[in-house]
Amino acid sequence: MSFNLFYSPDIDNISQLPEYESQHCVKVLRMRSGDKLTVTDGKGFFYDCELIDANSKGCTISVLNRYEVPTGRNFKLHIAFSPTKQMDRNEWFIEKATEIGIDKFTPIYSNFSERKDIKTERLKKIAISAIKQSQQASLPEIDIQVSFNDFISMQFNSKKYIAHCYDKPKTPLTQLYNKGDDALILIGPEGDFSEEEVESAIKNGFEPISLGETRLRTETACLVAMHTIHVVNNQ
Amino acid sequence: MSFNLFYSPDIDNISQLPEYESQHCVKVLRMRSGDKLTVTDGKGFFYDCELIDANSKGCTISVLNRYEVPTGRNFKLHIAFSPTKQMDRNEWFIEKATEIGIDKFTPIYSNFSERKDIKTERLKKIAISAIKQSQQASLPEIDIQVSFNDFISMQFNSKKYIAHCYDKPKTPLTQLYNKGDDALILIGPEGDFSEEEVESAIKNGFEPISLGETRLRTETACLVAMHTIHVVNNQ
Repeated sequence: MSFNLFYSPDIDNISQLPEYESQHCVKVLRMRSGDKLTVTDGKGFFYDCELIDANSKGCTISVLNRYEVPTGRNFKLHIAFSPTKQMDRNEWFIEKATEIGIDKFTPIYSNFSERKDIKTERLKKIAISAIKQSQQASLPEIDIQVSFNDFISMQFNSKKYIAHCYDKPKTPLTQLYNKGDDALILIGPEGDFSEEEVESAIKNGFEPISLGETRLRTETACLVAMHTIHVVNNQ
Repeated sequence: MSFNLFYSPDIDNISQLPEYESQHCVKVLRMRSGDKLTVTDGKGFFYDCELIDANSKGCTISVLNRYEVPTGRNFKLHIAFSPTKQMDRNEWFIEKATEIGIDKFTPIYSNFSERKDIKTERLKKIAISAIKQSQQASLPEIDIQVSFNDFISMQFNSKKYIAHCYDKPKTPLTQLYNKGDDALILIGPEGDFSEEEVESAIKNGFEPISLGETRLRTETACLVAMHTIHVVNNQ
């Protein structure tokens, strides 16, 4: 039912686990030469391997079998969000969204953003441990932070949505989104987007959405939005 | 759009805010006599009030207007869950579920539970701050922890579901749940329920469900389950 999954992005070329994975393998799990393990490259593949040299600085492994592991989704899911001031709230959103299943995160900064710099390396580590924990083979992309204006003027092939709290026309995402569509959803900061930002997003083809009856924190809105897409697709 | 909401469960009888709310009112928000504020009793009502005496030990207020605030839900939602070992994971589930909207939580302990004691007072504080933050008038109930066997033998009027990870017949919750139904969902501990527990829950009328394609942590499964009910009802 459950197994220990290791992450090694270059396993195709390098028959050695990264140091942090090697330490976990040898020091924590106490694995020994000859033991079998499963490794993912985060690019959609699992590798059944044998441990050749149990070295906590770098375990040598030999690949026995490589196979593709589909995400189980027939849609692409991309969330662009203004990171919150409290870093742990951003981190749990990355962890939970990765567990549930997502393709891409883009941190953005907008007029009312309370955090204009975010360490994407730290977020990537959280996403890696989340795919290991949830036993997935695809690591979501995490972009570097971009400005709201640069972001909304980029080209995307997916359906584009923007969530906001203003008393202006908007449709529940549950009613607007169609099963199977690729989705890009923009979620604003604690202080919301400015009304001007919402207007320019709409001019750039983003449809204004609501996410339910209650007032949600930024990170909760992010999770609610991405999970809504999953629920509609699972019906 | 946003306002400061205070919580005072006995506002109907006591024209004074609790000490922790009074401190927030006077020390943090620096409110003064004559200022207007909104208070909730957590029982479905908002009270528009005037601050009479700005005392950080206990603010005297006078109620100007009392009105009912519907939850916006036409279904009851009850999650029974095995609390995780890491307390912060239980706490964020309570916070997020309360923000999104839920009626009742029941912590349970089962064969593989890693936490058989949980401070519900601490969880209640988190739920209170979540309804204040999300500006709701109804505080969800948080039961004291009960044993799995006692719980499944209780009588409930709602549809009953149990989530598990075993390779046994189960239906996606998205396909089993019907809009408008009251729902009670059982979520197991890190190590899942035992197969015997799943069987006896089924004997007691709980329908076995799955929650998506990926393997979810306990607290993520709890949130995914409760939010699925919201999404189906918002369509």
